[in-house]
Amino acid sequence: MAVAELTSRAAAAASFARNNANSLHASQIYVPSSSSLSSDHFRTRYRSTVLPKITCSVNQVQNSAPVQVEIPKDKADCYGVFCLTYDLKAEEETKSWKKMINIAVSGAAGMISNHLLFKLASGEVFGPDQPIALRLLGSERSIQALEGVAMELEDSLFPLLREVNIGIDPYEVFQDAEWALLIGAKPRGPGMERADLLDINGQIFAEQGKALNAVASPNVKVIVVGNPCNTNALICMKNAPKIPAKNFHALTRLDENRAKCQLALKAGVFYDKVSNVTIWGNHSTTQVPDFLNAKINGLPVKEVIKDHKWLEQEFTEKVQKRGGALIQKWGRSSAASTAVSIVDAIKSLVTPTPEGDWFSSGVSFVYTTGNPYGIAEDIVFSMPCRSNGDGDYELVKEIQFDDYLRSRIAKTEAELLAEKRCVAHLTGEGIAYCDLPEDTMLPGEM
Amino acid sequence: MAVAELTSRAAAAASFARNNANSLHASQIYVPSSSSLSSDHFRTRYRSTVLPKITCSVNQVQNSAPVQVEIPKDKADCYGVFCLTYDLKAEEETKSWKKMINIAVSGAAGMISNHLLFKLASGEVFGPDQPIALRLLGSERSIQALEGVAMELEDSLFPLLREVNIGIDPYEVFQDAEWALLIGAKPRGPGMERADLLDINGQIFAEQGKALNAVASPNVKVIVVGNPCNTNALICMKNAPKIPAKNFHALTRLDENRAKCQLALKAGVFYDKVSNVTIWGNHSTTQVPDFLNAKINGLPVKEVIKDHKWLEQEFTEKVQKRGGALIQKWGRSSAASTAVSIVDAIKSLVTPTPEGDWFSSGVSFVYTTGNPYGIAEDIVFSMPCRSNGDGDYELVKEIQFDDYLRSRIAKTEAELLAEKRCVAHLTGEGIAYCDLPEDTMLPGEM
Repeated sequence: MAVAELTSRAAAAASFARNNANSLHASQIYVPSSSSLSSDHFRTRYRSTVLPKITCSVNQVQNSAPVQVEIPKDKADCYGVFCLTYDLKAEEETKSWKKMINIAVSGAAGMISNHLLFKLASGEVFGPDQPIALRLLGSERSIQALEGVAMELEDSLFPLLREVNIGIDPYEVFQDAEWALLIGAKPRGPGMERADLLDINGQIFAEQGKALNAVASPNVKVIVVGNPCNTNALICMKNAPKIPAKNFHALTRLDENRAKCQLALKAGVFYDKVSNVTIWGNHSTTQVPDFLNAKINGLPVKEVIKDHKWLEQEFTEKVQKRGGALIQKWGRSSAASTAVSIVDAIKSLVTPTPEGDWFSSGVSFVYTTGNPYGIAEDIVFSMPCRSNGDGDYELVKEIQFDDYLRSRIAKTEAELLAEKRCVAHLTGEGIAYCDLPEDTMLPGEM
Repeated sequence: MAVAELTSRAAAAASFARNNANSLHASQIYVPSSSSLSSDHFRTRYRSTVLPKITCSVNQVQNSAPVQVEIPKDKADCYGVFCLTYDLKAEEETKSWKKMINIAVSGAAGMISNHLLFKLASGEVFGPDQPIALRLLGSERSIQALEGVAMELEDSLFPLLREVNIGIDPYEVFQDAEWALLIGAKPRGPGMERADLLDINGQIFAEQGKALNAVASPNVKVIVVGNPCNTNALICMKNAPKIPAKNFHALTRLDENRAKCQLALKAGVFYDKVSNVTIWGNHSTTQVPDFLNAKINGLPVKEVIKDHKWLEQEFTEKVQKRGGALIQKWGRSSAASTAVSIVDAIKSLVTPTPEGDWFSSGVSFVYTTGNPYGIAEDIVFSMPCRSNGDGDYELVKEIQFDDYLRSRIAKTEAELLAEKRCVAHLTGEGIAYCDLPEDTMLPGEM
């Protein structure tokens, strides 16, 4: 080994040691005996491919006494430059930053995540003083792609992104997660019924719920995106009894955003004039985009859009067919706008809701205060929520109902209750009985 | 036609008229005679598919006298909700905003753009008080996909994104552009030589240069991403004599970012400790990532990384092979991190460069003050730049050279001069003569 190489290794080791001095992590770094030491000090390791831990004694060091160093054990799956440890409080530029938060993302090698992760890392979601750690869950099949994602995150030099861990075991990846964004789900194969899909994905979300229960932060906020997302969220919640049930969300924000856009288009106003739009119920074709309570320029939608036939007969379909229309145009599903809607969903929980407005999220009545709408409890149902920005939310009380809205809510409620019966074996509620009458997957989400 | 429909049309028309009252745009809106009036008021039109302009007299209006309305002529290719006109200065929330800027993007239906456009629209690049108009250039083949992109932008409800135009004619799309991000280029086909690629893409960039010259803002800033980007930028510049030559950039920022990451990995420091990294020359395998002037924690890299053999023999290769390694892992090219580097490149021009630091950009010496490095003029060469944040930049004077750096700069300089001879027919400098000795495309960018 050339002296120059040794010196460099020593410098790196010394640097690690210095940086570790004030941190909770181990103060020793093992350096693998591989000859390509340089950037491979910090290498990705998976459960199945642990590197040999060979102690390397170092003869020449810079500004420091000889040290033995070790890659900290609790960072077993860290990637590249993100394996470094340091004390953010020790540096001028970063000492005013908040405490780092751990964000777990499943389906992390997929297209939605490919948009979302870079938004999270840029500071756009949690703000410019919030350092973040990304904990990325992939599958055996996608683990190489996940390394690619981590490489691109490295190359992006985001100052706030301080840790990236990748892995295929939710019990490792979800460790200490304060947010869990569950995007990964099996897509429906040819000839597969919705019941089959519920079962297959239900298994995944049951396992992930158990893992969150076991290793995540006790107050982790969970947003389920993988379909069928409402019932997946229910299964996840039922398998994580230690985590408050109200912390589980199913994403209906893309539906809300699309509904706002369609109302804006119809009214001939810019979309920022549309507010108070609720998506009720299931993220499926039974969902109810609510035009009774929605407002345009502060006025009830029905006063602005006089074409009530359009509202009753075309509006909902336009919202629901948007994904299918997009696939037809663009040839791909709506990864970018889905990622934006996940950002919106998180921001809605970490920033105060604007006065008088609300946002939609699929949540459960269990443990929330009261049941203002008379909808069945213990299902994950999209409803209007408000937040004061602390990550929590409450349901909005001042909602109008008419017979039309009630009847449509009843239909989506019945569907979610049927889906619940379908997955009873996964929620600990006995033997499943599946009688889903029709296919209600949204176009473009097959 | 149902009365309800007419009423809605009238409301929309009235809304247009109100919003137009204080704007520069035409105060009349034509409504097409199509029966699907609702959201199709505002429809996408291409040069070849202009809608019939039929004056529609309206019988019922809301809060207003009858009006005749017309889609403004200068918004011929606007999309959906972005066809609305309004006066941002008239509203409380937006009246403190800056004047809207027009950003043209070519290759807008591709994957890099799919990341970039959402970053531009979110306010991440130009700030939270800078409304933007996106003018998206596609091809005949991609125009449907471009509609899909516009739909996803609609569904994302970005408050700052106020206009989206799509089209296939650069003379229309580049109209009044203040930024032109030229991403689209033909990829190299099987058996195609670099000379062929230079010619094919050169034709595209010659045309786009002419179009910018004819219709863009006279001080438009142009960032060329499509490869071979340096010589494409040169061709574009030579075909746009009315635009200051210094406004043309070839993107080498991803190379700079990758170089910083590799130096960080080698030194065992986080990437925010690496500064003053220059990429010299061509965005090709002759490029020179400069470790002589680069710094880690404010110290010269060579003092921190004592493995000088690694710096001389492995570092450059690691930077250049990153794209290829990524394709191997991820199966796709580095769209996300390329988009991040375009954001970085723009931000470097619109925010002051941190004291003592600099950034790399492929620029031309012509019309800049002096030639501090003795490099051939009139080629687009990546060099160290500083900006005071006004969109302009100057070259950094305090640069060290040694024989090693000089000899490598000479090689990339020779390549760019050879590329220039290759495209003489496109720069108005006579007959092309092509003697490129070897293939210098970067791995992963084939």
